[in-house]
Amino acid sequence: MKHLDIESLKEISRRCRGDILKMTTLANSGHPGGSMSSIDLLVTLYAFANVDPKDPWNEDRDRIVVSHGHISPAVYATLAAYGFVNREDVIAGFRHPASIFEGHITRGIPGVEWTTGNLGQGLSAGVGFALAAKFKKKNYHVYVVMSDGESAKGQVQEARRTARKYKLDNLTVLVDYNDIQISGHAHEVMYVDIKAEFEAAGWKTIEIDGHDHEQILSALRIAKNDGAPTAIIARTVIGKGVDFMEDKPDYHGKALTREELDKALKMLGIENDLHVYEEKRKLLPIKAHEKVKLYYEVKINTGTPRVYEKGTDNRSALGRAIADLAVLNDNVVAVDCDLKSSVKLDFLDKERPDRLVEVGVQEHNAAALAGALSADGLITFFADFGVFGIDETFNQHRLNAINNTNLKVVVTHCGIDVGEDGKTHHGLNYVGAPLAWYGFKVIVPADPNQTDRVVRYVASQYGNYVIAVGRSKLEPIRRIDGTLYFDENYVFEYGKMDILREGEDGAIYSMGSAVPEALRAWELLRERGLNFTVVNVPCPYDLDEKVLKAFSNFVVVVEDHNVYNGLGSLIAQKLFELGILPRKFIKVGLEEFPVSGDAKYLFEIYGLKAEKIVERILKEY
Amino acid sequence: MKHLDIESLKEISRRCRGDILKMTTLANSGHPGGSMSSIDLLVTLYAFANVDPKDPWNEDRDRIVVSHGHISPAVYATLAAYGFVNREDVIAGFRHPASIFEGHITRGIPGVEWTTGNLGQGLSAGVGFALAAKFKKKNYHVYVVMSDGESAKGQVQEARRTARKYKLDNLTVLVDYNDIQISGHAHEVMYVDIKAEFEAAGWKTIEIDGHDHEQILSALRIAKNDGAPTAIIARTVIGKGVDFMEDKPDYHGKALTREELDKALKMLGIENDLHVYEEKRKLLPIKAHEKVKLYYEVKINTGTPRVYEKGTDNRSALGRAIADLAVLNDNVVAVDCDLKSSVKLDFLDKERPDRLVEVGVQEHNAAALAGALSADGLITFFADFGVFGIDETFNQHRLNAINNTNLKVVVTHCGIDVGEDGKTHHGLNYVGAPLAWYGFKVIVPADPNQTDRVVRYVASQYGNYVIAVGRSKLEPIRRIDGTLYFDENYVFEYGKMDILREGEDGAIYSMGSAVPEALRAWELLRERGLNFTVVNVPCPYDLDEKVLKAFSNFVVVVEDHNVYNGLGSLIAQKLFELGILPRKFIKVGLEEFPVSGDAKYLFEIYGLKAEKIVERILKEY
Repeated sequence: MKHLDIESLKEISRRCRGDILKMTTLANSGHPGGSMSSIDLLVTLYAFANVDPKDPWNEDRDRIVVSHGHISPAVYATLAAYGFVNREDVIAGFRHPASIFEGHITRGIPGVEWTTGNLGQGLSAGVGFALAAKFKKKNYHVYVVMSDGESAKGQVQEARRTARKYKLDNLTVLVDYNDIQISGHAHEVMYVDIKAEFEAAGWKTIEIDGHDHEQILSALRIAKNDGAPTAIIARTVIGKGVDFMEDKPDYHGKALTREELDKALKMLGIENDLHVYEEKRKLLPIKAHEKVKLYYEVKINTGTPRVYEKGTDNRSALGRAIADLAVLNDNVVAVDCDLKSSVKLDFLDKERPDRLVEVGVQEHNAAALAGALSADGLITFFADFGVFGIDETFNQHRLNAINNTNLKVVVTHCGIDVGEDGKTHHGLNYVGAPLAWYGFKVIVPADPNQTDRVVRYVASQYGNYVIAVGRSKLEPIRRIDGTLYFDENYVFEYGKMDILREGEDGAIYSMGSAVPEALRAWELLRERGLNFTVVNVPCPYDLDEKVLKAFSNFVVVVEDHNVYNGLGSLIAQKLFELGILPRKFIKVGLEEFPVSGDAKYLFEIYGLKAEKIVERILKEY
Repeated sequence: MKHLDIESLKEISRRCRGDILKMTTLANSGHPGGSMSSIDLLVTLYAFANVDPKDPWNEDRDRIVVSHGHISPAVYATLAAYGFVNREDVIAGFRHPASIFEGHITRGIPGVEWTTGNLGQGLSAGVGFALAAKFKKKNYHVYVVMSDGESAKGQVQEARRTARKYKLDNLTVLVDYNDIQISGHAHEVMYVDIKAEFEAAGWKTIEIDGHDHEQILSALRIAKNDGAPTAIIARTVIGKGVDFMEDKPDYHGKALTREELDKALKMLGIENDLHVYEEKRKLLPIKAHEKVKLYYEVKINTGTPRVYEKGTDNRSALGRAIADLAVLNDNVVAVDCDLKSSVKLDFLDKERPDRLVEVGVQEHNAAALAGALSADGLITFFADFGVFGIDETFNQHRLNAINNTNLKVVVTHCGIDVGEDGKTHHGLNYVGAPLAWYGFKVIVPADPNQTDRVVRYVASQYGNYVIAVGRSKLEPIRRIDGTLYFDENYVFEYGKMDILREGEDGAIYSMGSAVPEALRAWELLRERGLNFTVVNVPCPYDLDEKVLKAFSNFVVVVEDHNVYNGLGSLIAQKLFELGILPRKFIKVGLEEFPVSGDAKYLFEIYGLKAEKIVERILKEY
């Protein structure tokens, strides 16, 4: 039921304006002002784009990302007008917990490609989808609708540059330039010369009246075929169509009262039938709606594991495994932020340079576009140092988690194992921070062999994972008899702890680059007549209760991580939950920002060195 | 010992080049390439600027921020050449744990205004310092030296726009445009049209040869007096001065070998006396150097507390208290990100509009510039929604913490108390996330009266604080006799828990917007014959052990926060540490991304409503 004749578009827009006002007034919440300024753009775009309400997830569909997700009333009204969703459900359910029509639009609602709401991230997602089309050799076009206020976010400029670099001629942006944001006129709050900035980033621009359907259509036609990423800068008026709302910041985030609604609907020539929806809303149960989640079946050949007999850094094992996967599979890509040789994506760059996305020092954009790539059928690795891939991109990954992406965040240079680069570069929150990204799983492998298996494992599972490794060379972990612990028969099982040594006098739990010190501590303790157990914990979020119960007498946790939010903290809570109070519980980790220096010195200074661990154990034994 | 004649500058630069190479080779670590391309800029700038090695922290000094902190060898060499620091200490100590000359430059070393290393944040700090000068009516000039590679960070564009908006004619940027970053030539890795982007943000630009001291000096003179923020874009060559290093990405982050050093020093006409420093380095102890921390004495009149007898939202109490402080004191400022009316900085805007910095939707820049403002003598409040002030700006605050700033992060709209805006806007990590920012303290006040006192308290203390509040209106907390709990005589003590109700059958610990539900639960339980204690915990990081010990039989923790990293998690760990296993321990909080809806519905759905809390208690009692 899509119409490209101007009169129909006008008529649909008029009716959508009524729906916007009804749903916000009924919910007594939401953002009518910007919805009214964006609606002509949306109505025209959804008519023009190759999207089909009867087959909303067709692989060849155009992707439409609405970045200023607070104009959800306009999006829902448009989707309802074209039959993607049920109009009554929208108006009655808007912002009610039992309704999928949340305050900000949600990926998975037919016609909605990306959950937005945290401003400035939508263009990055659009770049991700446009890149995905290129990787998949698909012809779909990607449209990003965004606001002028959010154009101030630096991430937007990062995304623009990336579009130029990758010649994303399949990407069109529509800017709703209503010059109003919460605090007043956008040009006064924080002036952004949107046209100049797009052009400085190499885009074509077209300026139009964003309420003139003919101009919008014409611009969309030009933008689609001009061989470059193009921004359509649409001058609009907030609250357009209702005189007392026009150009008023007040209506940015405030619904009309019943009286105002009545007045406004009259002005629009629309009947006020709010009571119909009101009755329907009353029937909604007070419970959370079922989750709207998209995912796809992961098809991948994980290849033959590599077995490392000699010492190597986990980074290289990580990089090699990613390269192996990309050689075997066309649906594997990796995103880099100018750290290729450090995070070891140089292996990938050598073997499949066409599968490496290099975006430079633009981590926010990188994390968000990687999320979108991963959501659009590509098994995506986002590689970075711990501080950038976790701390700097905290909220981007939170939004990826909300979007139920299939992202593999692989961070290297975690912990003080980084050494001389010092505290700005010591990523100490790779376990603690992702607790905020519900659904993300964290894996901290102990040696190159485990790292190799973990990479192949996460690639085969739909979902978001962090793999965190250090910087230094590590010897493969061996059993007492000298054979490899993670040998060619080893299969990684998520949540399994690895009992590396067994003894009855106490237990050292550890992960990642701290494990070699735990093993050396075991040796030193044995020399002093104490037989300890050493447990490797690669999955700190899903602790093996059986192992914890078995080895809970004298417990030591050693981690190259912030001691306040890491493995020790999680083990303490789990033991507490299990009702187990060990005779002694010692946490070794970082209690302050560390200094800069050779990692081996730092391990000594901060108590992670085997001798220091043993000293502490003996003191408290 | 500063020289402005060109020959001296050339000679100093030559000698600094030698020192750069010596210190990196001796440390076998560090970034010589960029140091060699920046050195002529630095040597000229430190000579030109009003900085005095004999009085390095003079209030009227010019501020120099070096944003690409990895060129620390160049900075240290320059500082040594001008007598700010001891040259032998620098060369011998570089990147050694016992030395203050860390891998990335550290605020507090004479001549170093800001710890950098996480790229793209330095210009925001510079904007902060330049704003501070305006607030203090000082004439000092601010210089930011930065790299071309980091210019890709979106935050840089945010900072540029802010400089224009506030007409920061006291701000000059020097861009070391060597066109090399780790992965290769910057224009290939991610092209940034630096000149066009500065100009799009309203800056003046000057292009020069960054190795020509005369051009550098001349540009500095023009920039200082041209009445606008100005960028000096200096074309440079990485590794400049040593032929085999020039224009080679390899030397970005790799020290020369001993043989290469020998060759390079010969080329520079400098004697190789590395053995002298080598001997000195060997004598350094393996321990962390003493912390280099700057702070200032806080002078503030905290005024007369406001007493709220009627219900109001904590946000308003927060905003009023900030306005009160600003009326009484000239050294109080607040930074807003287009949420003035929501975070209630509109009170400040009304009473002291000259103390409100409005930067629009540019949170990364806002957080960093707020940190710098706070470090430069201004008691600074950074106000934002929880998701933006905590989650989006996670790494900016981590860097503020490293810089030992005096920042008060006041976040509103925390928790599902936000309601209809939904999961993208539910800030659920205001306790969990700042655990990563060592030294930050978090305070979650329970009602408007406590909020008022907390704001006045944090303003009077040097240091970094988070104050987190919800969105809804809250009734002032009262004792059983109906009098105000936090009355006119109440004084906030950091770390103190508030026993709101006392009973022997169990204890509910809570904070912030969950406290009213805990109090209602107490009532409902009493109706059923159970006498519970209700404890308000405004300081989740510093738990009162005495109270915990006294009320640890049947423990319930209720929080409008992520259940995995919040108050419940911290109380569990503390009880475990104290060796206390309660008969029952129940954590109520958010276990997943919540849906969107009226807060009162969400409290019911996610178990935070009094009736639901009681239901759960009775089930497990």
